[in-house]
Amino acid sequence: MPGTTEFSVIEKYFTYDVARDDVVLGVGDDCALLSPPPGKQLAVTVDTLVSGVHFPVNTPAEEVAYKSLAVSLSDLAAMGAEPAWATLALTLQDVNEQWLEKFSTGFKETLNAYGLQLIGGDTTQGPLTVTVQLTGFVDAGKAMRRDAAKPGDRIYVTGTLGDAALGLKLLAVDDLPDPAISKACINKLNHPVPRVEFAQKAVEYCACAIDISDGLMADLGHILKASACGARLYYDQLPASTEFRNCATYLKSFDYQQMILAGGDDYELCMVASFENEKALFSLAESMGVLLTHIGDVDASGKLSVLDSHGELIELKQSGYEHFAHE
Amino acid sequence: MPGTTEFSVIEKYFTYDVARDDVVLGVGDDCALLSPPPGKQLAVTVDTLVSGVHFPVNTPAEEVAYKSLAVSLSDLAAMGAEPAWATLALTLQDVNEQWLEKFSTGFKETLNAYGLQLIGGDTTQGPLTVTVQLTGFVDAGKAMRRDAAKPGDRIYVTGTLGDAALGLKLLAVDDLPDPAISKACINKLNHPVPRVEFAQKAVEYCACAIDISDGLMADLGHILKASACGARLYYDQLPASTEFRNCATYLKSFDYQQMILAGGDDYELCMVASFENEKALFSLAESMGVLLTHIGDVDASGKLSVLDSHGELIELKQSGYEHFAHE
Repeated sequence: MPGTTEFSVIEKYFTYDVARDDVVLGVGDDCALLSPPPGKQLAVTVDTLVSGVHFPVNTPAEEVAYKSLAVSLSDLAAMGAEPAWATLALTLQDVNEQWLEKFSTGFKETLNAYGLQLIGGDTTQGPLTVTVQLTGFVDAGKAMRRDAAKPGDRIYVTGTLGDAALGLKLLAVDDLPDPAISKACINKLNHPVPRVEFAQKAVEYCACAIDISDGLMADLGHILKASACGARLYYDQLPASTEFRNCATYLKSFDYQQMILAGGDDYELCMVASFENEKALFSLAESMGVLLTHIGDVDASGKLSVLDSHGELIELKQSGYEHFAHE
Repeated sequence: MPGTTEFSVIEKYFTYDVARDDVVLGVGDDCALLSPPPGKQLAVTVDTLVSGVHFPVNTPAEEVAYKSLAVSLSDLAAMGAEPAWATLALTLQDVNEQWLEKFSTGFKETLNAYGLQLIGGDTTQGPLTVTVQLTGFVDAGKAMRRDAAKPGDRIYVTGTLGDAALGLKLLAVDDLPDPAISKACINKLNHPVPRVEFAQKAVEYCACAIDISDGLMADLGHILKASACGARLYYDQLPASTEFRNCATYLKSFDYQQMILAGGDDYELCMVASFENEKALFSLAESMGVLLTHIGDVDASGKLSVLDSHGELIELKQSGYEHFAHE
């Protein structure tokens, strides 16, 4: 039987050492066997990345590996869960040993960086598609759900907004006055850093969180819908990076407001907490070196408004990004 | 924003009622939240079906839905686990409401039939690919692993062998003397019934099990490799259906030996148990209406041999089926 087979792909590239005590049986049987820790709830998320849709077809294998884990890690962060187990369903056009070697190395590095163990998966033939499912642990009742926001709560965001959306635009710009801008923004697009550690501690203070994958307006909208609330965002308080602000002075043609409010793929956290927790939450963020900004307030209006520095309503063109939408 | 979006696809087609007490939060947040039962281990399996590779492109949506769950249910059966939670990562070329309606209905019916709850998923745009991950429960130490066979143990198989492989061949045959043969075999191919209930009880008697997805020789080979054993199979004892045997009298050109020994997709269980458990195992099978056949014995030879009714070695052309092999 010539060529590399499914079994040898798994054996060669995806049988990593088992490092976690809660993994009784890892890759290589009909199922993995796991011992969940007593008293914890499991947080489970699954994400698929399709070549040519979620990443350019020529993206290096190690970056595909990183991003396939990062987007799901960001979902665990949005619940405040501690990463534990991963599965990988990998559909490959053909067995490209060089690509697999790089993918495997990148995947393993990221697993190790977050204390994750690969426990199982499937390798199939077809158009390049990467599906990762992660399971994390969270104390019962502590997870940051979408449905717990109340009027009067305050809205925060980690990091800066719009960089990934700008990075996507800058991929097509050749002669930027300052290449450091492209580098920083494209790096944010290709290498988002999920807020996993901060989120695990922030569960003490935050009622809700969501990760910003579809854009601030769309993702905050999910919290408001699930919580049956409305909110005001203060446009001038929305945090932008130095690179983002510099770029806005060079390239006037882009819609920067749109990128800040509706740009996807930043994988920052939008969090909701009651005002009495604000001091403790800011202390936590500061102690962990995380930029955290108060950007708005939850209200009972039933709608999401964006206000300028004079408290006047800003008219918006569109509210977010949808995978199946025809833009 | 025109058209059906990712969120409305999930909301419309994949937000089923939560029926299980251990599901704290189902579809619709960043993660599902689950309460695993104390004292149980979790058995986890993931399988991907790619259109045009694992099923013909024109397969009805409800059959794709059924098979995507059946193949993973069969993996849970191979461990003896009780089905509990499902996730679905669905990649679609476009939003075809008719297709989604049928897929959703078929998926829900099968979930309900096996006590499964859909707890999360992802919907993306790309070539049609269905990835299902299932989690089941099994008492600690009871799972039927691949690495527990010992020389002297006996080898059994549920149901009959080769029907699905024959069904695949018969898809291309127009004028079969008896259409009931095609119907039965093609049904076995498209609608394999995982041995979920039997397996949950058989854990009391069986050390090992594997589901036959790649063919008896290949799958039994996985047990022997993991257990560092060999085995003898008795060719004349291998169970074939009436339809399979009748077809062999009509159509002489097919390689029936190959189908029995190496035909994939039957999703029967190959099980290993010590001789002292044989009586109890057969009683269990009989009480549940499951055909169970003693087909061979584990030995210390380090290789897998097939013997004829005179105890003579049968020469074999190939040992199994590999997804990436060039046949």
